[in-house]
Amino acid sequence: MKTWVPGADGSLFDVDNLPYGVFALPGEEPRVGVRIGDLVLDLAPVAAAEMLDVHHVFEERSLNALMAEGRAVRESVRRWVSGLLTEEPERDLVEPHLVPLQEVTMHLPVEVADYVDFYASEHHASNVGRIFRPDGEALLPNWKHLPVGYHGRAGTVVASGTPVVRPRGQQRGGTFGTSKRLDIEAELGFVVGTGSELGTPVPYDAFADHVFGVVGLNDWSARDIQAWEYVPLGPFLGKSFATSISHWVTPIEALDAAWVDLPGQDPEPLPYLGPGAVRGLDIDVEIEVNGEVVSRPPYRTMYWSPAQMLAHLTVNGASLRTGDLFASGTISGPDPDQRGSLLEIGWGDESAFLADGDVVTLRYSAPGTAGGRLSLGEVVGVVEPARG
Amino acid sequence: MKTWVPGADGSLFDVDNLPYGVFALPGEEPRVGVRIGDLVLDLAPVAAAEMLDVHHVFEERSLNALMAEGRAVRESVRRWVSGLLTEEPERDLVEPHLVPLQEVTMHLPVEVADYVDFYASEHHASNVGRIFRPDGEALLPNWKHLPVGYHGRAGTVVASGTPVVRPRGQQRGGTFGTSKRLDIEAELGFVVGTGSELGTPVPYDAFADHVFGVVGLNDWSARDIQAWEYVPLGPFLGKSFATSISHWVTPIEALDAAWVDLPGQDPEPLPYLGPGAVRGLDIDVEIEVNGEVVSRPPYRTMYWSPAQMLAHLTVNGASLRTGDLFASGTISGPDPDQRGSLLEIGWGDESAFLADGDVVTLRYSAPGTAGGRLSLGEVVGVVEPARG
Repeated sequence: MKTWVPGADGSLFDVDNLPYGVFALPGEEPRVGVRIGDLVLDLAPVAAAEMLDVHHVFEERSLNALMAEGRAVRESVRRWVSGLLTEEPERDLVEPHLVPLQEVTMHLPVEVADYVDFYASEHHASNVGRIFRPDGEALLPNWKHLPVGYHGRAGTVVASGTPVVRPRGQQRGGTFGTSKRLDIEAELGFVVGTGSELGTPVPYDAFADHVFGVVGLNDWSARDIQAWEYVPLGPFLGKSFATSISHWVTPIEALDAAWVDLPGQDPEPLPYLGPGAVRGLDIDVEIEVNGEVVSRPPYRTMYWSPAQMLAHLTVNGASLRTGDLFASGTISGPDPDQRGSLLEIGWGDESAFLADGDVVTLRYSAPGTAGGRLSLGEVVGVVEPARG
Repeated sequence: MKTWVPGADGSLFDVDNLPYGVFALPGEEPRVGVRIGDLVLDLAPVAAAEMLDVHHVFEERSLNALMAEGRAVRESVRRWVSGLLTEEPERDLVEPHLVPLQEVTMHLPVEVADYVDFYASEHHASNVGRIFRPDGEALLPNWKHLPVGYHGRAGTVVASGTPVVRPRGQQRGGTFGTSKRLDIEAELGFVVGTGSELGTPVPYDAFADHVFGVVGLNDWSARDIQAWEYVPLGPFLGKSFATSISHWVTPIEALDAAWVDLPGQDPEPLPYLGPGAVRGLDIDVEIEVNGEVVSRPPYRTMYWSPAQMLAHLTVNGASLRTGDLFASGTISGPDPDQRGSLLEIGWGDESAFLADGDVVTLRYSAPGTAGGRLSLGEVVGVVEPARG
């Protein structure tokens, strides 16, 4: 399909992409938009003019109301938006509501309900095991049986561009200080649209019924704080100061051409994890620090699949809510130039960690359904000095 | 002060208590009420009649809007409610809005933002250490330096009375099954009213500026699921199936007479944890299983104080939001009949864990400001068989 929007055809934000975000014009309340090329389509007035019955969801300051409408509405809204941008007769109505990106402020797209972070890359888990336990097994005994995960802090998930204040806190031996080992974790995040009932697991093949879309995610980590606090209940303050996500939520339908077989799982996972149906996403990640690309982690090399993470998260009967966010954990490929954290990239070199003023940009792209590539946007953060 | 409400004077829900909850009359929407004796005061119509400027907060289906108004409003609303129930001239206006408890349905009182669970009882942490690591040190090296904590699942915090479905999931060696070691953890929870800014820690002496009140809390735990999954990122599915809280949120002002010195801390905590100002709450807990009291944990024996938990939670700059809930971890006293979990009460006896149909009731009481005692309500749960 071709769009009539000038400059969008063949770009990374072509009409086969159409991610959703929350934008604000100067002096106006934030509301829902769709990106096409370097423009944002202001959906609320167009939906009102076309008397769409869900037009109110676009007037909200997060995507949650749209996401809560469920899979059928999600798919039909996407067809409607696609029609608006490809059918010449719609142009007179729609064109006045296309706003250049540089005229808007982008906001956190999702009101995050619960945030869960997994640890689904075998290369990352092995690298961390080798760095911290050089004489032991690289992977712990449970790692190949289940996607290890834990809950993070939903209230400190921030939009790309939000500055990250260097945290202070307790470190080894009960000393106090500013974190010197400030790190990134390049991850992929999945946003839940449709919730589930408490007590009833979500099966792995119901993934697309519940997951609305995908975001880029940087799980900022203070390694010195984390190392002292994490036994026996896991990471806490080493992570909870900030987690950044992209401005754009890419609908799961835009990634139809990106599904690939994952490398393989041995031992075969339990039935609830859908052995034999282990499909991942062929998403390329690029990590840039101060303008220089330092790594290119490939998401297709992950061990555990997105559907397995969701099935595991709910196998005990835990319910899902609209706005739940679950992330992959650090994406690291098999090669040294595919590592997803500075801990692994530096491998013992303390100077690899972030300095005040450093700017980190994560970029994500995938094959589009029209044959080209699409962008999932970027996740940017600048490190600000510690306070106090 | 004496109340004109029949039967309330001298009860555990006297006018020095006045906890808030969310109730619904048959066929009506849930809204905010205050408990007095065995009655609920329907605040919305009274506040509207008296033209209180915050009357809209009582029409909400959670306490969050009231709590978000901040400390000064919280204190003045409490004085206003106290006046309504003690001044005879108010009786004609107020009495028609007192509803017997048995005529209402109670709901989850708080829309939980982030849920953090600590591990603040030395006796509990030592007992667990001795049970799981009989040849090692009872406490891990960080335990006396910081209140160990982690994030739990906010979306599965449920109101007292909600049945708890026995979870299924992975256990030792990657086997799958129904949890056989279903346990309780008797805890105290603290509800945040006033949020804080990202990047700026909340000092220990700002506790009462941020904490609105206290709830009873049962952190249901599947020990067999937890034991297999928890390395290295902490408990996840072993906890996330359900956390029950009391219907009533006791305002922190109602506990003015309950503050006591805690047993003492060695080594002296770091300055941000307020050494020398370590005050806890003299709250008695009673654990009843199927009508029999099995333990009486005393909250005054905790090692880490509520203000220390809050200061630690934010020392890295993590922000607070209205509705954040942080809990103490299992309350266990020094004596065998003061233990707060069946794991400790049974100490190796597998039959101590919960069977289907078991009913667990946690009760909480404290010294009241008028010289008697007050109740913080109870936390009830019945175990339902696993599904599937």
